Amino acid sequence: MKRKGILVVVSGFSGAGKGTLMKKLVQKYDNYALSISATTRDPRPGEQDGREYFFVTREEFKKRIAEDALIEYACYCDNYYGTPRDYAERHLEEGRDVILEIEIQGALKIKDKYPDALLLFVMPPSAAELRRRLSGRGTETQEVIDKRLRRAAQEAKGIEEYDYIVINDDLDTCVEELHAIIIAAHNKPVRNEEFIEKMRLELEEGGE
Amino acid sequence: MKRKGILVVVSGFSGAGKGTLMKKLVQKYDNYALSISATTRDPRPGEQDGREYFFVTREEFKKRIAEDALIEYACYCDNYYGTPRDYAERHLEEGRDVILEIEIQGALKIKDKYPDALLLFVMPPSAAELRRRLSGRGTETQEVIDKRLRRAAQEAKGIEEYDYIVINDDLDTCVEELHAIIIAAHNKPVRNEEFIEKMRLELEEGGE
Repeated sequence: MKRKGILVVVSGFSGAGKGTLMKKLVQKYDNYALSISATTRDPRPGEQDGREYFFVTREEFKKRIAEDALIEYACYCDNYYGTPRDYAERHLEEGRDVILEIEIQGALKIKDKYPDALLLFVMPPSAAELRRRLSGRGTETQEVIDKRLRRAAQEAKGIEEYDYIVINDDLDTCVEELHAIIIAAHNKPVRNEEFIEKMRLELEEGGE
Repeated sequence: MKRKGILVVVSGFSGAGKGTLMKKLVQKYDNYALSISATTRDPRPGEQDGREYFFVTREEFKKRIAEDALIEYACYCDNYYGTPRDYAERHLEEGRDVILEIEIQGALKIKDKYPDALLLFVMPPSAAELRRRLSGRGTETQEVIDKRLRRAAQEAKGIEEYDYIVINDDLDTCVEELHAIIIAAHNKPVRNEEFIEKMRLELEEGGE
């Protein structure tokens, strides 16, 4: 019985620690494939093509849209961001669970196209802690931090659209919870129809 | 935020290894409470009152039914079996996940009364393996084994009523899967409404 991979969409407030979580999850367990988005924005210092993002031109991006080579895409602050289809579908077919980091609009688009996708929302233990983490980076002005918190307040309205939340208080615990949620999803009867059908047939034949 | 326990109903074919699984799960993790059924049948050699079952008289059992002291009950082969309410509700209230072993009709009655209950179905890796396990006990006649397999074929029709299946091939892996499924259930937004609401309020106040 071939195990089919699950498309796992991870969203969460800026500062909730999604990036670190997902990196740790992928390092610890080898059934995961981390999808890398394509973007038209310029690389920031330290970013590498193919690691943080695939950096492409607007022309190249539009070509991909036209070829239906992106599962979803969106435009923010004049830059395009999108999820390459080939990487995700190839790994799903191989039985690996593909993790995407994506904001809520993108997540809902994915759920529309792939109703079996698993939508997870990462939350900080409290808003005060979120503020501390955003301030602790030391790279943002007070204005940017306030803007991020206002955006989080907006995003928080959509949490019930997600299948699961995980609270990122302790990193290791949170990684284990993410992993547990994905294991659980593999155990739904709907994902095991072939196995259940086979068992029924065998039982009717008396288990010989 | 108080964590409320989950009522976990475990069913599965005779010979699938439910009993061993649940014992191991409860030994390994301390957030579980294993519910013990009451029955009017006689204890078998080696069985202890309060360990395998609470052995009670028919009169006592009927009194409990009248007092609504059982979450569900059923009659098999002229004997009553039922799930004591006080034990389950007390532990759920304390935040422990309460595990019941119960067959499908009982499981569906529980789901009716407690829509939040989590229904798990334990399956052997194959029908042939189930037959081997039933034969391997060495205590059953061929006739009894065939009867159990026919019953399993009947029970298999209801598997889609369950929230999850677990395949008991390797015992330790299976215990981890059960545990993962229960962790996942705690992470549904609907079980964290209070936390989500609090976060929304805090974010609107700017995380101060």
